[in-house]
Amino acid sequence: MTDIVIIGSGNMARGIGTRAVAAGRSVQILGQDLAKAAALAAELGASVTNGPVDFAAVDGDIVVLAVPYDAARTLVTGYGAALAGKTVIDITNPVDFTTFDSLTVAPGTSAVEELAKLAADGVNIVKAFNTTFAGTLVTGSVAGQPLDVFVASDSDTAKAAVESFVADAGLNPIDVGPLRRARELEGFQLLIMTLQVNPAHASYNWNTGLKVLA
Amino acid sequence: MTDIVIIGSGNMARGIGTRAVAAGRSVQILGQDLAKAAALAAELGASVTNGPVDFAAVDGDIVVLAVPYDAARTLVTGYGAALAGKTVIDITNPVDFTTFDSLTVAPGTSAVEELAKLAADGVNIVKAFNTTFAGTLVTGSVAGQPLDVFVASDSDTAKAAVESFVADAGLNPIDVGPLRRARELEGFQLLIMTLQVNPAHASYNWNTGLKVLA
Repeated sequence: MTDIVIIGSGNMARGIGTRAVAAGRSVQILGQDLAKAAALAAELGASVTNGPVDFAAVDGDIVVLAVPYDAARTLVTGYGAALAGKTVIDITNPVDFTTFDSLTVAPGTSAVEELAKLAADGVNIVKAFNTTFAGTLVTGSVAGQPLDVFVASDSDTAKAAVESFVADAGLNPIDVGPLRRARELEGFQLLIMTLQVNPAHASYNWNTGLKVLA
Repeated sequence: MTDIVIIGSGNMARGIGTRAVAAGRSVQILGQDLAKAAALAAELGASVTNGPVDFAAVDGDIVVLAVPYDAARTLVTGYGAALAGKTVIDITNPVDFTTFDSLTVAPGTSAVEELAKLAADGVNIVKAFNTTFAGTLVTGSVAGQPLDVFVASDSDTAKAAVESFVADAGLNPIDVGPLRRARELEGFQLLIMTLQVNPAHASYNWNTGLKVLA
């Protein structure tokens, strides 16, 4: 059984996979495009396995949904009770990408809270990695500082497992409390994304890192 | 006429006043407690003037409401059209301080948007300094980095005036767009405050700085 199952084979899968390997975790990449999943697995390391996006292929207890919000909804619904007992990490930002001016979830809720409503009983949903851009995850730092990874969940056990992985990956986990704090995480990342797409902010190019300096 | 009028004589008034003096701006401190306002003015510098919280005393075009949200509402309502043409900076975080678990404004709005609704026509409302803790403003930096000051407003002219002041104070202004982005600023500062009040986060003691590292 692998430690970290990553569903998706895009840039965020590459970033989180890179950090998982750096943390000494065994990793499995599952993708709809089997060739792409196999290529990413090979890029990440010889021991990284790969497979299709079928629940039968899921070979681990920590499952990272490295896909957009709508795809995450489909996965959580489709897998249903098969995810019970697993730690499922939602990394999404439900940004309206046509306007970059709002989230697609209603005020007062968040992508991850909506996923939790769709999830079967016993699925341990965690919000993490939504404020870390893919390129910075590959590097593991920004401006010489370890990335902050904000972690929210209603399951303390699941949160602890994610924080342990994050810390072993050389990043700085910050427990921000229950799942309802995710609105603040997703909202602020919308604001950060508005900076990246605004040509007036020449120094913000999808490579920034949000830090709580102390 | 002074450059920056600060209403309030507490810790945030001290922090912003310190930076305003560092920026070479003339400063006026207005407070309900006249002795306290006079003491803060004297502490900030010999040229800093002071007075009562009456509109007749306001002697400048940039007015910082360095007071809690409810007091800011009272000021904006009470001053009414007298503030027309002025740049009014709201720094508040409408946190429910009994629970540290939510804002006191409805989801989808913010303290500053509610203040803008109360303000008379022609008052240029700006959100700024809500993510900068008072102690870090006195220092002007955190962990050796200049503070980020997130600035939101529907008035580009007012925003530019605030950004100029912030930059001259040695801080890093970040234009985050229109006033509606303030919800994200206030929401995230709630999240930061939950870290400060949580004894599990020993290194976060009301002295942190939120930075977008690039």
